[in-house]
Amino acid sequence: MGSLETERTVVGWAAKDPSGVLSPYSYTIRNTGPEDILLKVLSCGICHTDIHQVKNDLGMSRYPMVPGHEVVGEVVEVGSEVTKFGVGDVVGVGCIVGSCRSCNPCKSDIEQYCNKKIWSYNDVYTDGKPTQGGFAQSMIVDQKFVVKIPEGMSPEQAAPLLCAGLTVYSPLSHFGLKKSGLRGGILGLGGVGHMGVKIAKAMGHHVTVVSSSDKKREEALEHLGADEYLVSSDATRMQEFADTLDYLIDTVPVFHPLEPYLSLLKLDGKLILMGVINTPLQFLTPLVMLGRKSITGSFIGSMKETEEMLEFCKEKGLTSTIEVVKMDYINTAMERLEKNDVRYRFVVDVAGSKLDP
Amino acid sequence: MGSLETERTVVGWAAKDPSGVLSPYSYTIRNTGPEDILLKVLSCGICHTDIHQVKNDLGMSRYPMVPGHEVVGEVVEVGSEVTKFGVGDVVGVGCIVGSCRSCNPCKSDIEQYCNKKIWSYNDVYTDGKPTQGGFAQSMIVDQKFVVKIPEGMSPEQAAPLLCAGLTVYSPLSHFGLKKSGLRGGILGLGGVGHMGVKIAKAMGHHVTVVSSSDKKREEALEHLGADEYLVSSDATRMQEFADTLDYLIDTVPVFHPLEPYLSLLKLDGKLILMGVINTPLQFLTPLVMLGRKSITGSFIGSMKETEEMLEFCKEKGLTSTIEVVKMDYINTAMERLEKNDVRYRFVVDVAGSKLDP
Repeated sequence: MGSLETERTVVGWAAKDPSGVLSPYSYTIRNTGPEDILLKVLSCGICHTDIHQVKNDLGMSRYPMVPGHEVVGEVVEVGSEVTKFGVGDVVGVGCIVGSCRSCNPCKSDIEQYCNKKIWSYNDVYTDGKPTQGGFAQSMIVDQKFVVKIPEGMSPEQAAPLLCAGLTVYSPLSHFGLKKSGLRGGILGLGGVGHMGVKIAKAMGHHVTVVSSSDKKREEALEHLGADEYLVSSDATRMQEFADTLDYLIDTVPVFHPLEPYLSLLKLDGKLILMGVINTPLQFLTPLVMLGRKSITGSFIGSMKETEEMLEFCKEKGLTSTIEVVKMDYINTAMERLEKNDVRYRFVVDVAGSKLDP
Repeated sequence: MGSLETERTVVGWAAKDPSGVLSPYSYTIRNTGPEDILLKVLSCGICHTDIHQVKNDLGMSRYPMVPGHEVVGEVVEVGSEVTKFGVGDVVGVGCIVGSCRSCNPCKSDIEQYCNKKIWSYNDVYTDGKPTQGGFAQSMIVDQKFVVKIPEGMSPEQAAPLLCAGLTVYSPLSHFGLKKSGLRGGILGLGGVGHMGVKIAKAMGHHVTVVSSSDKKREEALEHLGADEYLVSSDATRMQEFADTLDYLIDTVPVFHPLEPYLSLLKLDGKLILMGVINTPLQFLTPLVMLGRKSITGSFIGSMKETEEMLEFCKEKGLTSTIEVVKMDYINTAMERLEKNDVRYRFVVDVAGSKLDP
C-alpha cells in the first residue's frame, strides 16, 4: 500500500496549556511514507512523565500537546518499503519515533542515546511538524520505531511494558544482571518500581523492596511476589541487609541520601538510578571505593531491547498490574497518578473510548 | 631454612605521636613461620596515606608506628613451606599483609576487599602484635602477600608501583579498560595521577590530563607523555572535550563538583574515584542516566593484579618518576609531599641509609 494523496485528520486528547488538562483536539498526521506504519491506537499507558510534560514542568512544552508514549495499536496501512509489519499486526510504539541513524549510539543499536532522537510527542519531526502521542485515534511512525507485540499478549497488558518495563529491563540486561541467582533491590514502588519487581523476579532474582513506609508491604510481598520488604527508616533491618544486594534499582524521583542504599550493596554492586532529579544527590567516596560499587543509571532502552523485553515477558508469562480506564477519565487518572493513587499503571482503552468532542 | 629460636630486633623509623615526626625505633619482629618471608628492605616509597596515618588524621593511629607500604626488599630467609621465593630474590610488599582467606573476596582473589584484611602497618597481626611498615631494616611477611619484582627492574623504580601504580592499574584492568585505542583522562597530577598517565599511555590510550591550573602543562605533555592538557576552569576547552572520554581517573583528594567531569565522559564512560574524601560529593542524576555513565571507584588492587601490573610495567618499559632520598631526609620529604612539592614520588633508599640512632 502506498501513501495517500491527502493528510489525514485525527482526533486526540491534548493539553492546550500548562494547566495540563486534556480535551479533544483535531490535527493532521502526515501521509504514509515508504517506511511508515499507520496504526489505529488500541491502548496507551499513562506515565509520570506525561504529567511533567503536559504541565510544562521541564519548561520545554509546546501546545497543543497529545501525550502518551506507551502505545499499542493495530496496523492499518504500511508504506511501500515496510517489510517488518503487515496490516492487522498488533504493534507497539514507545518514547522515541526518530533518530539520526549515523552517530555511534545509532550505529550501535542504542538509538535512545542519539543526540538527535525525536520524542513520540512534544517534539518536531523531520518534516517540521509537531509529534503527537498515543492518546489519539491514530499514529504514524517509521517502522524502525515500531515493535511487534507478541501473539497472545493483550494490548492493555503490553502498553506499560513499552516504557516502564523497558526502563528496568534495559539496565538489568546491559549491566550483566539478567541471570538467575542474583539478589536485587527495588527502591520505590510506583509504575517503574512495580515492573522492576516483576521483571527481576522473572529473571530468577531474590527481590527486596525498599520503601520509606510500611504501607505497601502486603502488596509487595503478596501481590507482586517480592521476597523481602525493607523500610528504609528501620536502621536495624537496614543493617541486617548491609552488603547483601547485587544491585538496587532506585526509582525515587526526588532528592534522597544515597549512603543508606549504597550500604545495602555487595562488593561490585550497582546502584541504578531511574529518577531524573534536579537537586544534586550526594554520596561519600569511601562507600563507593571500598566496595568497588557503582552509581549508574540508564535511560529507557533501545528498540532491540524492547523486542527482547517483550519476548522475555511473554516467555515468562509476566503481566503488568494495571487499572484500565476510558479516555473521559484521563484527567482524573492523571490527578490520581500524581498522588501515587494507582496500582500500578493506568492504561487508557483508547479504541474503546469516545474521542470526539 | 626454618624459623629461628628467638625474635629478631630491628630498627625502623617510627612516629611516636601525632606530630608525625619519624625517628629511630627498635622493635621485635616474629620468627620466620612456615609461610613467612624475611626480607631486608631496599627501598620504600612515601605515599600520601603515610602522612594521614602518622598524624592520626583518620583517628585510628597507634604509636609507635613505622609507616611505609611501597616496600621492595631482598629475601634473606624463607619458612619451611615457602615455595614461591628463595633467598636473594628481590620482592615487593604493598598495603596488605593478611586477610581471612575464606570470605568471598578472598576466594575470588580480591583480598583487598576482605573485611578482615591486615594493613602492612598500624594494624594488629594474627599473633596480636602490631604490624610495622617498610621504613625499617627488615620486614617479615606471609608469602601470599609478597610479589616478585621482575628481573631488571630497580628497587627504587618498583617501589611506587606497589601502591600508586597498582591503584590505577587495578580499575583499568577490572573495568575492561586495559585495551588500546581508548581515550582516558587523569584528574590531578600527584603520585597516583602521574602513574595514571604512564600506565594509561602504556595501555595505548590517548591521555588527557585535567588540572585546576596551567602550571603542570609542560610536565604533563613533555615529561609524562600526556596527549592533551585541560584546565578545568577553561569553560571553552572543557566544552570542546565534552563527551570525549571513555574514563576519567579522579585522584583529587578533596571536595570538588563532579558535573564538569561527568560531562567529559562519552556514553558508557566511567568516572573512577581514587580519593577518600569525607565531604559528600554531588552530582545531578540526568548527567549519569542520559549517557549511561558510571561513578565508581576502587581500592588499591589484589596480589594477582600486583603481579600482572609489575609484568605489564616491565614489558612496557614503564618507569616511575621519583626523587630518591635517604632516611634522614624523610621528615622533610613528608613536609614537601604535603605541599605537593615532589615530582612525583619520594622513594627512600632504605638499604643505603643509616637507620640506627
